[in-house]
Amino acid sequence: MTTGVRRRMGVEERRQQLIGVALELFSRRSPDEVSIDEIASAAGISRPLVYHYFPGKLSLYEAALKRASDDLAGRFLEPQDGPLGARLLRVMRRFFDFVEEHGPGFSALMRGGPAVPADGPRSRDAMSRTNALIDGVRQAAYDQILAHLRIEDPPARLELVIRSWISLAESTALIWLDGRRIPRQELEAQLVHDFAALTAVSAAYDEEMADLLRTMLKDEPTDGPFTDLVGRLVSLGAQSAP
Amino acid sequence: MTTGVRRRMGVEERRQQLIGVALELFSRRSPDEVSIDEIASAAGISRPLVYHYFPGKLSLYEAALKRASDDLAGRFLEPQDGPLGARLLRVMRRFFDFVEEHGPGFSALMRGGPAVPADGPRSRDAMSRTNALIDGVRQAAYDQILAHLRIEDPPARLELVIRSWISLAESTALIWLDGRRIPRQELEAQLVHDFAALTAVSAAYDEEMADLLRTMLKDEPTDGPFTDLVGRLVSLGAQSAP
Repeated sequence: MTTGVRRRMGVEERRQQLIGVALELFSRRSPDEVSIDEIASAAGISRPLVYHYFPGKLSLYEAALKRASDDLAGRFLEPQDGPLGARLLRVMRRFFDFVEEHGPGFSALMRGGPAVPADGPRSRDAMSRTNALIDGVRQAAYDQILAHLRIEDPPARLELVIRSWISLAESTALIWLDGRRIPRQELEAQLVHDFAALTAVSAAYDEEMADLLRTMLKDEPTDGPFTDLVGRLVSLGAQSAP
Repeated sequence: MTTGVRRRMGVEERRQQLIGVALELFSRRSPDEVSIDEIASAAGISRPLVYHYFPGKLSLYEAALKRASDDLAGRFLEPQDGPLGARLLRVMRRFFDFVEEHGPGFSALMRGGPAVPADGPRSRDAMSRTNALIDGVRQAAYDQILAHLRIEDPPARLELVIRSWISLAESTALIWLDGRRIPRQELEAQLVHDFAALTAVSAAYDEEMADLLRTMLKDEPTDGPFTDLVGRLVSLGAQSAP
């Protein structure tokens, strides 16, 4: 719907528009396959004008990655009331929404592949900035989980469970993207269950973690994901025990 | 113990010696902190002679990484008899031995940091080669687990459990290296339990995985890690269920 009149955008407005256009392209295909010409064309401006706002593809990629990181970290926010399992399930849905929206770009980034879509070599500084953005999102996830558990100073075993579960969530999403052979709804629930299961493994051998697990499960409704899992595992365990 | 007589080494022998010396140094400190001068000095030869065998630090790093990858993949090999839990526990011990021997280099590599210890920018090709080596080790771990489960054509849910557990093992080792706040023996056992727990979560909602879990647990001795865990979880679940 063009009116034939092109309104002049302000500098910041134009920058934000370009970041949005670039993020869309970097998300849909592996970022190293996206050219500045394509971004210019999608934004409806000339290639030199893109360079007027961003010195090169790298800086535009980094701005797009920053926006995507802030977006993802924002999706971790969840009101701190109601059962924990249901809260985590809602966050997992929003995480998979994000993964689905940014599939190829997310894959390329997380596989340590073309994180920086320049054709030549990439600088150590650029790689550090990319890794810092990824680590920032992981830290945001970690902080949110602690906040929901109402724990400020976590024991080492809890920190390990949370951080290693975050990496499990990343790899589960990456494996899902590679062929989508399992429905994502199943994996969203599975990751909630995995969190409980990893906590339970730690709790089976450590009293402090066992107390924590009991607190986590205390307010779970009988139809919530945690309780459902515990019931199924107890039944499976009873069948499987030699 | 020098005899004062320096025996002349053959080309391949010298290359292998340099790779060993470099791997030792790249393992003990972050690889980007290790200089060619230091490698030359540790090998007892001149800097120009190092360059005679390897065109630069990158090629020496890649050769060291190849040796370390082969070494690690070799540690996954385990006779296919006896209870599965005990087999996996022995592999986890050897995995943590490796992680302990190569701590700082392993951390730097797996955190996507100074994987290639050149001071300048690194090429896309070099990064691809590094990632291919890491993926090769992951694939070796995956293949070994399938072989021990005697499964040739795994369902998607089993592939997901195994591959995501491998990433959990990597992140558990990295978190352990960062401060070593939990005894490694505990984490070796925990990873065996985590494998069973992630399989159990999948089995709780999928009949094919439930059959597989029953087969896995069938030959476990009552004092093995899997049975011990199941007993503890059943008891914890019974206490925790609302």
